[in-house]
Amino acid sequence: MDLMKTPLLTDLYQLTMMQAYLDRQMHETAVFEFFIRTLPEQRGFLLAAGLESVIEFLEALKFSDEELTYLSESGRFSKAMIDYLARFCFQGDVDAMPEGSVFFPDEPILRVAAPLPVAQFVETRVINLLHVQTLLASKAARCFLAAGGRVRLIDFGPRRAHGSEAGLWAARSSYIAGFDGTSTVLAGHLYGIPTFGTMAHSFIEAHDDEREAFIHFAESNPRIVTLLIDTYDTVAGAGKAVEIKETLDRKGIPIRGVRLDSGDLLDLSRKVRAIFDRSGMRDAQIFASGNIDEHVIRDLLSAGAPIDAFGVGTRLNTSSDIPYLDCAYKLMEYAGQPRLKKSEGKATWPGRKQVFRFFREGRMTGDVLTLEGDPKEGTPLIRPVMRCGRRIEEPGRLADIRAYALRQISALPEGLKVLTRPPPYPVEVAPALKQLKTAVEKKSG
Amino acid sequence: MDLMKTPLLTDLYQLTMMQAYLDRQMHETAVFEFFIRTLPEQRGFLLAAGLESVIEFLEALKFSDEELTYLSESGRFSKAMIDYLARFCFQGDVDAMPEGSVFFPDEPILRVAAPLPVAQFVETRVINLLHVQTLLASKAARCFLAAGGRVRLIDFGPRRAHGSEAGLWAARSSYIAGFDGTSTVLAGHLYGIPTFGTMAHSFIEAHDDEREAFIHFAESNPRIVTLLIDTYDTVAGAGKAVEIKETLDRKGIPIRGVRLDSGDLLDLSRKVRAIFDRSGMRDAQIFASGNIDEHVIRDLLSAGAPIDAFGVGTRLNTSSDIPYLDCAYKLMEYAGQPRLKKSEGKATWPGRKQVFRFFREGRMTGDVLTLEGDPKEGTPLIRPVMRCGRRIEEPGRLADIRAYALRQISALPEGLKVLTRPPPYPVEVAPALKQLKTAVEKKSG
Repeated sequence: MDLMKTPLLTDLYQLTMMQAYLDRQMHETAVFEFFIRTLPEQRGFLLAAGLESVIEFLEALKFSDEELTYLSESGRFSKAMIDYLARFCFQGDVDAMPEGSVFFPDEPILRVAAPLPVAQFVETRVINLLHVQTLLASKAARCFLAAGGRVRLIDFGPRRAHGSEAGLWAARSSYIAGFDGTSTVLAGHLYGIPTFGTMAHSFIEAHDDEREAFIHFAESNPRIVTLLIDTYDTVAGAGKAVEIKETLDRKGIPIRGVRLDSGDLLDLSRKVRAIFDRSGMRDAQIFASGNIDEHVIRDLLSAGAPIDAFGVGTRLNTSSDIPYLDCAYKLMEYAGQPRLKKSEGKATWPGRKQVFRFFREGRMTGDVLTLEGDPKEGTPLIRPVMRCGRRIEEPGRLADIRAYALRQISALPEGLKVLTRPPPYPVEVAPALKQLKTAVEKKSG
Repeated sequence: MDLMKTPLLTDLYQLTMMQAYLDRQMHETAVFEFFIRTLPEQRGFLLAAGLESVIEFLEALKFSDEELTYLSESGRFSKAMIDYLARFCFQGDVDAMPEGSVFFPDEPILRVAAPLPVAQFVETRVINLLHVQTLLASKAARCFLAAGGRVRLIDFGPRRAHGSEAGLWAARSSYIAGFDGTSTVLAGHLYGIPTFGTMAHSFIEAHDDEREAFIHFAESNPRIVTLLIDTYDTVAGAGKAVEIKETLDRKGIPIRGVRLDSGDLLDLSRKVRAIFDRSGMRDAQIFASGNIDEHVIRDLLSAGAPIDAFGVGTRLNTSSDIPYLDCAYKLMEYAGQPRLKKSEGKATWPGRKQVFRFFREGRMTGDVLTLEGDPKEGTPLIRPVMRCGRRIEEPGRLADIRAYALRQISALPEGLKVLTRPPPYPVEVAPALKQLKTAVEKKSG
């Protein structure tokens, strides 16, 4: 069972609805769009991610014999539906904002147009793929803004991410959003993201002497010697790094730096920096980790902490302050008719939409949300991605996606680059869309 | 690439440390324990989950040719290490608390004893597997306590869970913690968990008329008719359910109930209940969903909301108030010597440990944390699970794990069953363990 691909990672209601759609021959084209309803207070913008895995999922979508047998034996579905599922694949169209796009509430980042039973069925996994990757990229973008290009940022691995995909995607999403690399080996293998890593406290503790541990590590990994110095006493640990420098120098092994993983990082980084600077180790870098997030990065850098790189782990890969977004994948059109939901607090804009973005001197000044085909100035953000179930362009290179994302982040209004209480960004709803909504409301009245 | 099994879902430092361990022939037995350092204010206890997937991971642990080639071509590791990895498997011992055990800070729920390069290497994925499943089970247990056996609880699917594993495990972990089922089809297939599902708003919107949508659904899914009535107007939707009752009755299709997914659930559930009660639909149940968590459940039930079941989605499967736990997998012993970390705020208890639990009249009264082999009264919680890389008992049936968890939750002191500001539970550190710590501290000076 490949958890990344199985179509059974879905809600049962996708299948019970499918049974009803098939019984009634409701095969006309349905249009669904994925968007965020509202931004939490702690986010001024979002960064789209996950599109590539949506495309991969849709291209490979297929029920295996084992899965068909399970559904058949459940007794819930007709023979005709099981036969339909045996031939099931995604032959629809997808339009989307590219990965790395900055976007705002009500702006769709993905549209699926396909026969109703198909477009409906893919909802669960499409949300599951887009939501978390966008969540993680958006969190990482805040760390990137806090770092301000002054220090390097490393994703610090999957241990507390919510499972394997979350761990892998934390590496990919944060790299798109400006991180320099990851400790996750799999992300190096699958995506070519630069990987970083040296030693854990257990490595030090497994030796009887901290100095001895440092030397052992350095001899076995001579090109990446970053010594973890806080296992017993950080300042004493820095002193030991100085003591072994000569031994390692003689062997041609440079000490790249040290890592601090606990305690008062401002105070300790200053003390360690001072020790190194007066001991001929001006080039040794200070790497900080342990409960790092965008606020810690900003505060330490504002206070002048002599830190050269941060390892950002749990608070990034769980997006701990905002662990979910209020996202939705909603029916916008069926059989050529725009559709509308009016549930309290959950109303939607009907129809197939496009987002136009306006710039002045390279800075974003506002977006317009309107209907596809409504002619507007500005840059359209939603582009064709799949037609008849096939991608229409080769997958983008990750380096290019990252470069695009960094241009997007750079073009944000300055006000939106703050970490707390960012102002709202102007997203105007065009008259054409408002008129359509009013017309649909009257009709479904 | 099977994301659930690949050993590359790890931190690079596990491999750089391995290189050093191999170069120095540091193959003696290392003992690591997994535990939680501190409880967040919003948790009075935790519920252990994830052991089964740890065992499966360790039993299957193996590097594929593709993975070996990647590591070899990285140029980071010696030929001897690549050869070692080609033969790599887990041949160690595991002791653990059973899934469904209630536990507290500093109490290990899993111990790995294996040659140092092996016991160290598995750290990343062992934490990744245990952390999120324990996190989700602990969140679900709070919903179960809030429901107090008065209503049914359904896990409402993987869409906003952080990837596939998190979605699947939300279903399994919540079922262990007392939920009645899930909407996730895959959890039905893999674990036999009861699955639930009816219709989405898009199903209603794809029809021109809400009544027609209800009837279509019912005719295609006659045994599971729960009508979603809030797409346009909840009270009007309840009226339509009443109107179609006779039509469905004639076809022998019972309306099981309705689902409310938005608005003031207390007010709406009362209005809908009143409509049904005066319309011969006393048996129709009211199912509530939308931003549900343990607090919402408690508040609605305290206010007397006539709700029969809750669908709990995002706030459960992201554990949204507490999206991570302060957990660790720490070296406790190497080559027969107890080991200790003294980093500020992160000190550990050394040695191989056992937890004894004491009860009075079926209620837990306190735990004692001590060394394995220290003779104590009370019930020992940590048991042998794997020896020489193989499990020593068949996997437990999920129903039995669930029954055990519910006995554990039931035995909690009453004070710990509250949702806010639970008091601390007494965990005493035995003199034997304190003495060992003092001795190790003196030695490592």
